[in-house]
Amino acid sequence: MTIGIALSTAETITSAALEKAAELNLKPLTVAVLDAGGHTVLLKRQDGSSIMRPQIASGKAIGALAVGTGTRWLNANAETRPHFVNALNGVSGGAIVPVPGGVLIRSEKGETLGAVGITGDTSDNDEACAVAGIEAAGLVADCG
Amino acid sequence: MTIGIALSTAETITSAALEKAAELNLKPLTVAVLDAGGHTVLLKRQDGSSIMRPQIASGKAIGALAVGTGTRWLNANAETRPHFVNALNGVSGGAIVPVPGGVLIRSEKGETLGAVGITGDTSDNDEACAVAGIEAAGLVADCG
Amino acid sequence: MTIGIALSTAETITSAALEKAAELNLKPLTVAVLDAGGHTVLLKRQDGSSIMRPQIASGKAIGALAVGTGTRWLNANAETRPHFVNALNGVSGGAIVPVPGGVLIRSEKGETLGAVGITGDTSDNDEACAVAGIEAAGLVADCG
Amino acid sequence: MTIGIALSTAETITSAALEKAAELNLKPLTVAVLDAGGHTVLLKRQDGSSIMRPQIASGKAIGALAVGTGTRWLNANAETRPHFVNALNGVSGGAIVPVPGGVLIRSEKGETLGAVGITGDTSDNDEACAVAGIEAAGLVADCG
Repeated sequence: MTIGIALSTAETITSAALEKAAELNLKPLTVAVLDAGGHTVLLKRQDGSSIMRPQIASGKAIGALAVGTGTRWLNANAETRPHFVNALNGVSGGAIVPVPGGVLIRSEKGETLGAVGITGDTSDNDEACAVAGIEAAGLVADCG
Repeated sequence: MTIGIALSTAETITSAALEKAAELNLKPLTVAVLDAGGHTVLLKRQDGSSIMRPQIASGKAIGALAVGTGTRWLNANAETRPHFVNALNGVSGGAIVPVPGGVLIRSEKGETLGAVGITGDTSDNDEACAVAGIEAAGLVADCG
Repeated sequence: MTIGIALSTAETITSAALEKAAELNLKPLTVAVLDAGGHTVLLKRQDGSSIMRPQIASGKAIGALAVGTGTRWLNANAETRPHFVNALNGVSGGAIVPVPGGVLIRSEKGETLGAVGITGDTSDNDEACAVAGIEAAGLVADCG
Repeated sequence: MTIGIALSTAETITSAALEKAAELNLKPLTVAVLDAGGHTVLLKRQDGSSIMRPQIASGKAIGALAVGTGTRWLNANAETRPHFVNALNGVSGGAIVPVPGGVLIRSEKGETLGAVGITGDTSDNDEACAVAGIEAAGLVADCG
């Protein structure tokens, strides 16, 4: 069963994220919205987004869910504790992408509802779109 | 690069497939639309659709692309040549789901443009929704 | 190092196999020529041959090398001893495709030089093209 | 279905790349040409090219397609963001080889048509042969 994020909420998040990308004139993006159990609710790949982008977007979202905060935290850890991030790749079966752009979706009370992963432009721009999407749904973005 | 199927076409296919499912009062579905290279363009999981449905929907679509026709063909082969279908699971790294509901998307000229995989109800109902989606986009469904 | 089959020999085999296919008016084929160590020397996928065909062609050739005779033998075993063929899929890491069309390449003295795997039409037609290719190179085909 | 690159184009690219290698007196090479969906169209391993070269050549080509530019970009990222390149290995199931020699094939309009991966000599020489092959086919090489 879908946990935490309804498909309609995922639609709102994704549409708002892609509108933000259009405003910023970004490269083609791929957006993945995962529920609190780490399972995909919605994935969209824009025309021209390269073939491994679905895995990268999902890997950012899974990374955020894996450690309970956005992947900016994992990106920082990759410098200070690379052995931890390597190990996380291992125990996850290679599912984690530890760069910014994986953002945890929280309720106002702080509950984890799911995560958004975006890829295609710079990691900072990817993350800005994820935040815009989450806030458009009236939810709280945790970038890490 | 997205190949064969634009995101806007995938949106049309998915929406029409889910409208068909609502008409038929089916259980919650997951729909995956893959491009001709086997890479996801759009994936939607309806509320209540169970956690492995994204992999099953994608596996039906990949199965259709793998052999160049809908998965009804693979389903029939699973009875007459089970060792072939088992082997296809092996060489694909376990990516194939050989039951109806994986439908090849063809142009009017017969070119392979991508595939739709649907799961959640009976395989026959899943397939009927895939066909409805493809035809709503003015394209040709190849069920196998 | 390439073992048993020079690239020039693999070219001869592949060209002759595809000429045979054109004569018989077959569907688009994929041809893999592997050396005696099971490593690819030459792989060609004709326009319109579906996306998993490289793995299927290679899997037929590996199947032939795995048991030291053509995959027609494995296809027969799949009926009489399915547990053996299943186990072979397992120990090979899912690399074996046990249907006709994987043909061992032997010297006149009977030495194993490599194998050809072909897929795209019926298994019998695939195999006929592999035999034509091997014989065009003055070598001996072992279908199993 | 083969997407973007016909077998005849792949033949032109491969032959020209190997002629360039002969001119430069390089070590034995393996050349892989993949279509825009990441599926092999043509693979050739020259006599004396070692046994894992098919996987390395393919891995360079897949790396280029994964991120939408040549693997020189991935090679640079491996120094500045090693955790990203490690993660890309993970999410791709270990399919990526992030060193120069994976070159994206573009049309004059900039569309991604496929990728060439070459291995066997230095990465710079491998890449030079890939570029020579792509240009011989009247197409545009994107090294990253």
